Amino acid sequence: MKVNGTEYRTIWMEGKSVYMIDQNHLPWEFSIFRSDDYRTTCRAIKDMTTRGAGAIGAAAGFAMAQAFMDAPAQNFEEYIADARQTIMDTRPTARNLFYAVELVYETGKQSTDAAIKQAQRIAEKDIADSRAIGSFGNELINSGANILTHCNAGWLAFVDYGTALSPVYTAHAAGKEVFVWADETRPRGQGARLTAWELNNAAIPHSIIADTAGASLMAQGKVDMVITGADRIAGNGDTANKIGTLEKAIAAKHFGIPFYVAAPTSTVDLACKTGADIVIEERNPDEVLYQTGPDAQGVIRKIRVASPGSTAFNPAFDVTPASLISGIITEKGIVDSAKDNLLDLLNRL
Amino acid sequence: MKVNGTEYRTIWMEGKSVYMIDQNHLPWEFSIFRSDDYRTTCRAIKDMTTRGAGAIGAAAGFAMAQAFMDAPAQNFEEYIADARQTIMDTRPTARNLFYAVELVYETGKQSTDAAIKQAQRIAEKDIADSRAIGSFGNELINSGANILTHCNAGWLAFVDYGTALSPVYTAHAAGKEVFVWADETRPRGQGARLTAWELNNAAIPHSIIADTAGASLMAQGKVDMVITGADRIAGNGDTANKIGTLEKAIAAKHFGIPFYVAAPTSTVDLACKTGADIVIEERNPDEVLYQTGPDAQGVIRKIRVASPGSTAFNPAFDVTPASLISGIITEKGIVDSAKDNLLDLLNRL
Repeated sequence: MKVNGTEYRTIWMEGKSVYMIDQNHLPWEFSIFRSDDYRTTCRAIKDMTTRGAGAIGAAAGFAMAQAFMDAPAQNFEEYIADARQTIMDTRPTARNLFYAVELVYETGKQSTDAAIKQAQRIAEKDIADSRAIGSFGNELINSGANILTHCNAGWLAFVDYGTALSPVYTAHAAGKEVFVWADETRPRGQGARLTAWELNNAAIPHSIIADTAGASLMAQGKVDMVITGADRIAGNGDTANKIGTLEKAIAAKHFGIPFYVAAPTSTVDLACKTGADIVIEERNPDEVLYQTGPDAQGVIRKIRVASPGSTAFNPAFDVTPASLISGIITEKGIVDSAKDNLLDLLNRL
Repeated sequence: MKVNGTEYRTIWMEGKSVYMIDQNHLPWEFSIFRSDDYRTTCRAIKDMTTRGAGAIGAAAGFAMAQAFMDAPAQNFEEYIADARQTIMDTRPTARNLFYAVELVYETGKQSTDAAIKQAQRIAEKDIADSRAIGSFGNELINSGANILTHCNAGWLAFVDYGTALSPVYTAHAAGKEVFVWADETRPRGQGARLTAWELNNAAIPHSIIADTAGASLMAQGKVDMVITGADRIAGNGDTANKIGTLEKAIAAKHFGIPFYVAAPTSTVDLACKTGADIVIEERNPDEVLYQTGPDAQGVIRKIRVASPGSTAFNPAFDVTPASLISGIITEKGIVDSAKDNLLDLLNRL
């Protein structure tokens, strides 16, 4: 996607260098972080310089390829084994990460050149999947549509295009008029910070709203559809996504508004039969109690936004049952998981 | 209610002085603002040193009484007429304010002493109504209940006890175990700031949650009931309250959890037949785009929490239809507006 008129990917590799948009500085500052070895790339994954399922997968694959390029002949195998473990330790719960590391590791047994090509292929596949999701999702969007999205499942979370926002980009590129309501997405504010930044760069009309405003807009007929991403999809179509997704799905159902989830099929986790098998991560209460951002002078400040004597409860995700989801937009097509068996359908598509 | 062990009201009058808890400094600092004349009291209403339906009504009545005490004999009527107009101009949409001013103004025609007594009566009536709401609401609360509330309809918004929180205080005083989930209530954060502050002072177990977390807690059986306040109730029971209330009501209905509104009968507006007649105020987008609070050194900072290129849409209230409300807890009793005609019921009670 374009930033100030120049085409960028969220992350890419040229020679031995991995480049990534520094997401710790967004939306206040746009800068590219460069990593010349796998250890630096690992640190960038760990400190969230790059984040989001697809982007982390690509970063992990690139890091493994960097290790093959740097491994000294005298203790090649030890170096590679160390690197593989170090990369896997960066974000222990990121599924895409393990998949990418293993793929590049196995291919690297043939040659370093094969490892590099495999890492690039992972990134290209991420882009192709995102584009396919955009193409299928675009068919659901009428010109003039007002689309509500929660959190950030845009191109910053993947290598390019993204999932929930990819249909919006495709529709916009096809000349359709689209307007996006971007939920702030407290506590971390990915909607107000990253989704709004993406949409602003793509010149797509949008407005940030507090997480409290969605149902009211739906009641007034100001929302035509909801599209969100997914962190994990159970075998029956129940979907774990950023906290607050469930509430929008319930409100959408109440008002008869279509609610779509956009995600590559790799998000389906066969180990989870239903949403009840998905464990909800509880995060640091400080994310609710404090906010960070620049003051009028551009100095980044951390302030308390809650009463000093109180604490907070901070679940990171919630589970939206398949019955509330109108369809899951995948790279293979759109699946109605409420009606059909998700896995059978995915296999048929 | 008690603050650090000392009993306080939100606002009170002694002699010619009106005292009020300075709500612009809460929750960071507890201080009492003193006003010795009606003009200072007017400024305090205008700049929200005191806020909330009941507290504003009491402040307006006290201001009118202050004017009677200060009015010079030589141009008594002009002075009183000026004061009446100045008070009414402070918060043009506050219904309680007009009611209180008129009552004290009319009574003051008898004597200044009568005006003072009338102003005190208005404040006492506010407290009596809040206590009655607490008593009726308490009957709905079982020991061990987890209660979710949105925004601040506690004693800070009234003269004492409040509406949505009054049943909680009554239940707690009766020895019941209660736990409160306090919605942050973006954009202005009244839940995280004022409700949490109140509950902390009352030593009632509670936790602040992001506005995104309510439905997820309901899905896990962690919410037994929802109680909110009301800014205005239409004749059919449709209720306008802080933005985000509608979403909680829809989620509560979805999970079969009772959803109550607590408000004095004076909140019912006969001019509004249904919620469709209630105009929704749109406020400054900056409330969504910026946050204010103290940094680690206690210096109050204003920071941006949204992408610089984007703007926000900021509706202040939403309307919850009577069909989603299990009951309206009033000072006269609990009304089931979904089943019965609200006005008939109120008249019978």
